[in-house]
Amino acid sequence: MAIGPDELCELLPVEGIRIGAANAQIKRPEGDDIIVFELSPDCEVAAVFTRNQFCAAPVIVAREHLQKGMMPGHVRYLIVNTGNANAGTGDEGLATAYQMCETLSDRREMVMPFSTGVIGERLAIEKIMDAAPEALASMAPDNWARAARGILTTDTRPKGSSRQVQLGEETITITGISKGSGMICPNMATMLAYVACDGRVSPEALQLLLSESSAKTFNRITVDGDTSTNDACVLIATGVRGEEPLHPDHADWEAFAEAVEAVMTELAQAIVLDGEGATKFITVQVDDAATPGEALEVAYTVAHSPLVKTAFFAADPNWGRILAAVGRARFDASHGNGSLDLRAVRIDLNEVCIVSNGGRDAAYTEAAGQAVMAEEFITITIRLGRGSCSDRVWTTDLSYDYVKINAEYRS
Amino acid sequence: MAIGPDELCELLPVEGIRIGAANAQIKRPEGDDIIVFELSPDCEVAAVFTRNQFCAAPVIVAREHLQKGMMPGHVRYLIVNTGNANAGTGDEGLATAYQMCETLSDRREMVMPFSTGVIGERLAIEKIMDAAPEALASMAPDNWARAARGILTTDTRPKGSSRQVQLGEETITITGISKGSGMICPNMATMLAYVACDGRVSPEALQLLLSESSAKTFNRITVDGDTSTNDACVLIATGVRGEEPLHPDHADWEAFAEAVEAVMTELAQAIVLDGEGATKFITVQVDDAATPGEALEVAYTVAHSPLVKTAFFAADPNWGRILAAVGRARFDASHGNGSLDLRAVRIDLNEVCIVSNGGRDAAYTEAAGQAVMAEEFITITIRLGRGSCSDRVWTTDLSYDYVKINAEYRS
Repeated sequence: MAIGPDELCELLPVEGIRIGAANAQIKRPEGDDIIVFELSPDCEVAAVFTRNQFCAAPVIVAREHLQKGMMPGHVRYLIVNTGNANAGTGDEGLATAYQMCETLSDRREMVMPFSTGVIGERLAIEKIMDAAPEALASMAPDNWARAARGILTTDTRPKGSSRQVQLGEETITITGISKGSGMICPNMATMLAYVACDGRVSPEALQLLLSESSAKTFNRITVDGDTSTNDACVLIATGVRGEEPLHPDHADWEAFAEAVEAVMTELAQAIVLDGEGATKFITVQVDDAATPGEALEVAYTVAHSPLVKTAFFAADPNWGRILAAVGRARFDASHGNGSLDLRAVRIDLNEVCIVSNGGRDAAYTEAAGQAVMAEEFITITIRLGRGSCSDRVWTTDLSYDYVKINAEYRS
Repeated sequence: MAIGPDELCELLPVEGIRIGAANAQIKRPEGDDIIVFELSPDCEVAAVFTRNQFCAAPVIVAREHLQKGMMPGHVRYLIVNTGNANAGTGDEGLATAYQMCETLSDRREMVMPFSTGVIGERLAIEKIMDAAPEALASMAPDNWARAARGILTTDTRPKGSSRQVQLGEETITITGISKGSGMICPNMATMLAYVACDGRVSPEALQLLLSESSAKTFNRITVDGDTSTNDACVLIATGVRGEEPLHPDHADWEAFAEAVEAVMTELAQAIVLDGEGATKFITVQVDDAATPGEALEVAYTVAHSPLVKTAFFAADPNWGRILAAVGRARFDASHGNGSLDLRAVRIDLNEVCIVSNGGRDAAYTEAAGQAVMAEEFITITIRLGRGSCSDRVWTTDLSYDYVKINAEYRS
């Protein structure tokens, strides 16, 4: 199950990036399951990683190699395998992650490795070594769609976004792909996402842009509240176009940053649309909170409530569950002693007001509730009446298929 | 679905308490759905309530009447209805809760009302008024089992516990009942529980005992992480037996408190055993944490993880999900900067060590993992290697039936 159209949009090549793929028989007997990105020497690379303390071996190695390579051209390859996360694998897993890098270059620190799939099983590195030459031989600039398919695990569809933005005389192309469907509650970035543009960007600005944009996009989605051990998001600027490197004081910065965030928003939402067993795309919008943290806490409390999620699956306007979830959230204790003025709270589902004055809205009807719950895209707007802070997260419902997928995965 | 035997144990009468029941056609066309407890004039009553800010109207009224009645004999009746929570019902709901009290006594402050069921719908108070005389007419000391059945909602079985403890020459009887199956993550008490003993207990000691015991029992269970708007737990001492009131400095206090806690433990575990869709009873035991709060946080993070819960439902030793859940918990930042020494972490499922030295235990085998996951009662023991604090919660797996029950409830 998944929400919205299945088709992958056209993914424009980004000059300075070539992509290869091969079947290493890690995830599946046929079809790509390793992907290699080759970066031209002028590329700047920024990345954010999971904050899960049991982060996977490739996350440790990718972070280490990125830190060594804080100059253009240091990172030359990204290698991704699907089917095995190489997480919870101890010292052997770490050695394997280094070996993955060595399959592409004698200078392993020029390579960032990424793995996704089952946690806790040995990664068959010999299969990756065998398949790497085929991946290198298939290198081409227009392999983005192939890569979008090759990195999937329980996803039902590839995810990509591409757009161009005019900055002065230059047309900058931004293209990205992502994967993820379960274990989705990114704390730093989502499962895996790779975004590249052909502009010239200063390294500090690139990392800043990635941190800010991923906070607003990948870090605002949740399928099941489980933060993966392998989350990573990489942003590459190939530096092919533009004279002066872009940075926040540049006249074109805002247009550029907006375009990058738009691509990342599409990639993040694509993960929710393809969330495990998802039948609804739910936006939880919290307004008038006392603090930004409180807004986010309320949004996540509602988004993670199994009872709210099953009510959406049933398309049942059992809105009391939303009210109960709001009521159990942790409010900022330094504002009004953390206590909620129930009469000031208002909750809407799309255009239908369900709660006001501490109870069911006087104008609410079951027919209106049922009509809105039948829609595929639903925004829950929760006004807390405590201040002026807002936040929102995107999530899914909880269906039989979520349980089925996760009870049967692995076996 | 439910775990363990279905039979209700023998529930001994508690002198000083009589119980009546009737069908008011709120929850079902036949069978009891309102219950009345009549307390003799010497009873001491203590209660704890939900901390959900959207607490139900009867919770507000019960708390108010209990506070007025801090002397023996003030509270004379408890009235409980199932089928409608009278929560999220605003001013009308509050008026209804007061009317529930008035059906039993002209002095409404002598009555504590309790409701459980669907949130956000009007409670048909006229039906309760009509049925109250029948409930009063059926008053008897040995109606505990009938009450245990009459308060159920989505529960599949009644829950009760009864025991006697010898204090000097007196035999004290303690009997309790509870209900709850979903929306279970009590923050103060569970859905509904009523425990009575015929001992003499000082009012302060009774409230202290209830607070401490419910913290260790009802506040340590979770089915789905959703804290109800209607949670309440009442502890009554009828004062029939014993000369001196029991209090913490009394020679018999420890034996008495242990017996009360044992009854409450059975009632709390009975809710988990009957958790919505449950096929496994899982104890999450966290040891060697830096702080008590950290131990509880890790235990809840694991107990609430949908991926951990579905793996238990599948009886699949996909233990990487446990490790991932531990890794995303919030650790106390004042100890080692909140960072986990992965090599010091050890995780066991019953007698099978799954994680040590930062990865899969060297002696672990898939066969051993499968054998332990096939059991109905599983203890996950997580040693953090950060200190000497412990805590544990009891929870269930996440099955198709959980989704089915919650997608179909109401409709």
